[in-house]
Amino acid sequence: MFYKRLKHIKETLKKEKLDAVFLSNASNITYLSGYSNFSKDEREAYIFLGPDFGYIITDGRYSEAIKKEVPHLKLFERGGGKSTEELFKKHKSKIKSLGIEEDNLTVSEHKVIKKHFKNIKHIGFSNLRSIKDKEEVEKIKKACEIGDLAFKYILKKLKVGVSEKEIAQILKRFIEGNNAEISFPAIVAFGKNSSVPHHQTGKTILGPESSSGREGLIILLDFGVKWENYCSDMTRTVFFGEPSSKQKEIYNIVLEAQKKAIDYINSQIKLGKKIKTEDADKTARDYIIKKGYPSIPHSLGHGIGLEVHEQPYISIKSKEELKKGMVFSIEPGIYIENFGGVRIEDLYILGKDRLEQITNSSKELVII
Amino acid sequence: MFYKRLKHIKETLKKEKLDAVFLSNASNITYLSGYSNFSKDEREAYIFLGPDFGYIITDGRYSEAIKKEVPHLKLFERGGGKSTEELFKKHKSKIKSLGIEEDNLTVSEHKVIKKHFKNIKHIGFSNLRSIKDKEEVEKIKKACEIGDLAFKYILKKLKVGVSEKEIAQILKRFIEGNNAEISFPAIVAFGKNSSVPHHQTGKTILGPESSSGREGLIILLDFGVKWENYCSDMTRTVFFGEPSSKQKEIYNIVLEAQKKAIDYINSQIKLGKKIKTEDADKTARDYIIKKGYPSIPHSLGHGIGLEVHEQPYISIKSKEELKKGMVFSIEPGIYIENFGGVRIEDLYILGKDRLEQITNSSKELVII
Repeated sequence: MFYKRLKHIKETLKKEKLDAVFLSNASNITYLSGYSNFSKDEREAYIFLGPDFGYIITDGRYSEAIKKEVPHLKLFERGGGKSTEELFKKHKSKIKSLGIEEDNLTVSEHKVIKKHFKNIKHIGFSNLRSIKDKEEVEKIKKACEIGDLAFKYILKKLKVGVSEKEIAQILKRFIEGNNAEISFPAIVAFGKNSSVPHHQTGKTILGPESSSGREGLIILLDFGVKWENYCSDMTRTVFFGEPSSKQKEIYNIVLEAQKKAIDYINSQIKLGKKIKTEDADKTARDYIIKKGYPSIPHSLGHGIGLEVHEQPYISIKSKEELKKGMVFSIEPGIYIENFGGVRIEDLYILGKDRLEQITNSSKELVII
Repeated sequence: MFYKRLKHIKETLKKEKLDAVFLSNASNITYLSGYSNFSKDEREAYIFLGPDFGYIITDGRYSEAIKKEVPHLKLFERGGGKSTEELFKKHKSKIKSLGIEEDNLTVSEHKVIKKHFKNIKHIGFSNLRSIKDKEEVEKIKKACEIGDLAFKYILKKLKVGVSEKEIAQILKRFIEGNNAEISFPAIVAFGKNSSVPHHQTGKTILGPESSSGREGLIILLDFGVKWENYCSDMTRTVFFGEPSSKQKEIYNIVLEAQKKAIDYINSQIKLGKKIKTEDADKTARDYIIKKGYPSIPHSLGHGIGLEVHEQPYISIKSKEELKKGMVFSIEPGIYIENFGGVRIEDLYILGKDRLEQITNSSKELVII
């Protein structure tokens, strides 16, 4: 599997006329090495691949583990006086052009690389992972399954007096009780808090205090599961007490917007046409605007895998196309300040003949 | 508090002869804004500070929250066609020299900045947070306190048949049950696994299977707590069954190495001399080497606060000095492949007269 992935990189290098690549993105390093224990933001490891070499560069804390678990890459241990520059010096004569990950490499790292290589070019390795293989899909599906169970479970816990934080905590415990992890801190928003798409889950208590009455209090739950490094992500919006007609209307518009995007994708598949993420987003977005509500303040969806958000991005600003084997979210929302918000998010895999939804929680309007 | 922190930045700018600064490090953004809900690796926010302006730059998902919670910075909402470049254009005439965080800013972000500014200079804002104020110290102490309770609790759970993962899980639940979070995934290493300083907590089971017998099985526990965004970090190594004389010897050497570093720091305080992190590290490291064991494959310690690892770094490669108000770890270790490892880690705050240890779990050799 890793040989296949490394081969894919080497083919891309050929296509881009690059002799070697220096990878710094932590998820790409996990993808190519199979090792997932590096910190995501502490620059603990790199991969350096060339015509006749493949190194994983890290420090002494990881050496023993890397030797055991990553036999397909040669370990270069830096630290204790040994710097990555030694490797650059050793191989630079063979490397006329080097690929880097511009969106990830820092200015300081770039400075060191520039000392050794003249022709440095950005290489878009972030889409390296956008088409998932069978094993990856299985892991994401398993994460989704646990997410569905968690949603069922949490509905029973939504009672007067409970706080957003407590609900997030209960979700977390449930997920961990299923031998998984959370893929990100759950967003739990009660009432008006739901109008902030990324509300910071807080101390707001469920009950009349947080609304004008018991009726129609919005509860937005956005959470995900990580199973063997692979993430899920889903959002459901439910109502505590009978929703007002405006709340119901908003809910149905959001649900219909999601359906419009799905229909667009399925019809393109049938027609054998290109599926532009830009158009998928526009389909849902325009429907919401047409109904008199504000444009979605985020993109319609995102790829998911080793990271919660990764390519492809389903966005009006994106020029990407959806392809077979991609796994992504579709998550329209309507948010109104001082009123509240509704978002519905599911994950899908693009199959041969149709889009398959892999989060399976009900989308019927739930009243608690 | 935020005004004081912003003032500190502006003073540094003056000292460095910079007119403005563009900050991208997520922890620095939390430190200066008080808002902690941004993703750490998705480049969701920036702070742009100049002679007569202070912006927080983010997208529509966060606008409402930022308006409410960050009144001391002006919100610039990007997205929907609005780019940060608009801000650059508006203010560039006043800015002859701009500071950036080279260790954090990506090559792509730098490219955009270079279009607008000519004189761009690295500014070491990572030590912005190294001296903690009273409130920060209180939060770290509270995190340490919960960590101490967690250690006491976990000792009772170390029984034959339990796995590393389960122990990590139980620690996590205990910490979360105390309304805190883990500051990083706990490292739990049984037996020989402990020879990897950053062992990936796995399925190894406690009991005779994972060692030659029940005697002297090493259990290394490295974990931390996050309380109101502030982290703690500690490591204890305990023994399951009577340790061998070699295991005992190693344990005592590591403990003594920690004490040597503490003594060095305290004696420098008494003498009113500079406390060099380099010398603190060397004191502990040389002691271990003198005793015939391998040099520590990591640095002796690290600052801690909003991040688990931050400045100051207590390392032979560091030129930093320890100053009053700094909070950091001292964590010597000895690791022997196919045998095991011992690490002892505590957190300290540098007070006026002496070093104060703020993790308070016993360091007596524990046999379970």
